[in-house]
Amino acid sequence: MPAKISELDQLVVVLVRPRNPLNIGAAARAMSNFGARHLRLVNPYAAGFREARSAVGASALLNNAQEFDSVAEAVADCSLVVGTTAIRNRALQDPVRRLNEASASAIRTALVSGRAALLFGSEKIGLTNADFTHCHWLLTIPTDEQNISMNLGQAVAVCLFGLSRNVVDEAISEQIEPAASGEIEKITQGLYEALKISGYVKPGNDAVSEKKVRRLMLRFNLQAMDAKVLLGMVRQIVWKLRQDAKGYPFTR
Amino acid sequence: MPAKISELDQLVVVLVRPRNPLNIGAAARAMSNFGARHLRLVNPYAAGFREARSAVGASALLNNAQEFDSVAEAVADCSLVVGTTAIRNRALQDPVRRLNEASASAIRTALVSGRAALLFGSEKIGLTNADFTHCHWLLTIPTDEQNISMNLGQAVAVCLFGLSRNVVDEAISEQIEPAASGEIEKITQGLYEALKISGYVKPGNDAVSEKKVRRLMLRFNLQAMDAKVLLGMVRQIVWKLRQDAKGYPFTR
Repeated sequence: MPAKISELDQLVVVLVRPRNPLNIGAAARAMSNFGARHLRLVNPYAAGFREARSAVGASALLNNAQEFDSVAEAVADCSLVVGTTAIRNRALQDPVRRLNEASASAIRTALVSGRAALLFGSEKIGLTNADFTHCHWLLTIPTDEQNISMNLGQAVAVCLFGLSRNVVDEAISEQIEPAASGEIEKITQGLYEALKISGYVKPGNDAVSEKKVRRLMLRFNLQAMDAKVLLGMVRQIVWKLRQDAKGYPFTR
Repeated sequence: MPAKISELDQLVVVLVRPRNPLNIGAAARAMSNFGARHLRLVNPYAAGFREARSAVGASALLNNAQEFDSVAEAVADCSLVVGTTAIRNRALQDPVRRLNEASASAIRTALVSGRAALLFGSEKIGLTNADFTHCHWLLTIPTDEQNISMNLGQAVAVCLFGLSRNVVDEAISEQIEPAASGEIEKITQGLYEALKISGYVKPGNDAVSEKKVRRLMLRFNLQAMDAKVLLGMVRQIVWKLRQDAKGYPFTR
């Protein structure tokens, strides 16, 4: 009797800009092998996605896959977002953890109370730094240093095997509900506006700072309750800053 | 630094009657990812093997793959022979073990003193009972009962990942310095002032809210670097709110 594999049914596998229909199909097959059900694609290469869907034996899972225009939208309902990367030594700003029981356990814990997303980048370049800003942390499969780049379908299979509990049932008791990414994004946007109005963000430097704010918010590991409070605070501050700005149209 | 992956260099991966060149290539790629070097094929479908070898980027590993006419010949120099199977409930005469640390450790132990073979059957029917008679025991990947049949290339990748020791080194980039309480207090005070000026904190309700803000900040588990950034943001916002407030002395 296998370990309770259905614990991965709240896992969302997100393929970002996948191209090869065989890889999309392989990812879906691996998900089905390990009991994961939610496949999402961000800007898939259209022909590849059509081909994958029309392939003989394409699963219900593949036919139910959802398409999104951005990583932010694809992970909006997830309380934990983990990006995968082969790169271990690049100066990554985000924490990188190996795929092992400890990191798997962290993801399974998040799955007890909500959805968690596992992101895989395109075959050619993987996830970008911009994609990483949506991630709480990064996951890497320990591979031989001579050949760190895995095939996409195989990487999905290895990760899902690694996540499925194959020791024995460890007791999980976490009653903390983590904030959904969509809520954190609202805080990020609000705070970013406050920073613009207040002059913390300088014109021409916008992109850097928005990512910086998002990363910062993700590192807070906000609970749902706290996210609600923080969003209320940020919105009030933004409202006040806007009010003040209205009064001084010519001094700005 | 990854765990010593090269411990798999005495592992022999044997594909028995493989047909699909993509799967043969995928098996070779996974081997290369996890530091296994010896690929052997028993009666491969000739066209498939030729195609796999001639594929763009076919590895040295694939070019050095050896062909055999029988399982017996392919495993002749191995001191441990393990067959893989998806089938768990068939009346198998051989012991079946799950892929986990215990079974992986048994195979790694054999690799210390000699070669061990891991057999994978054809895409259609897997290993036969005749093949099983060459095996000391059988290995199965714990999968969802609804879909136990894995793609060959993915099964090879999962098995090699499972065999490679990935327990050891935990944190790769976890040199996190937590923020000092004094810094968190400065953020608390700054944010609290912003909340007062913006009207979030109502007069007469001050004590409750300041504690609330402090508790919130403490729950963020701020890193020292992040605390510094957040303090800079809060101070700039407070400065702007104060500037604006100065302009409206009589409306307050």
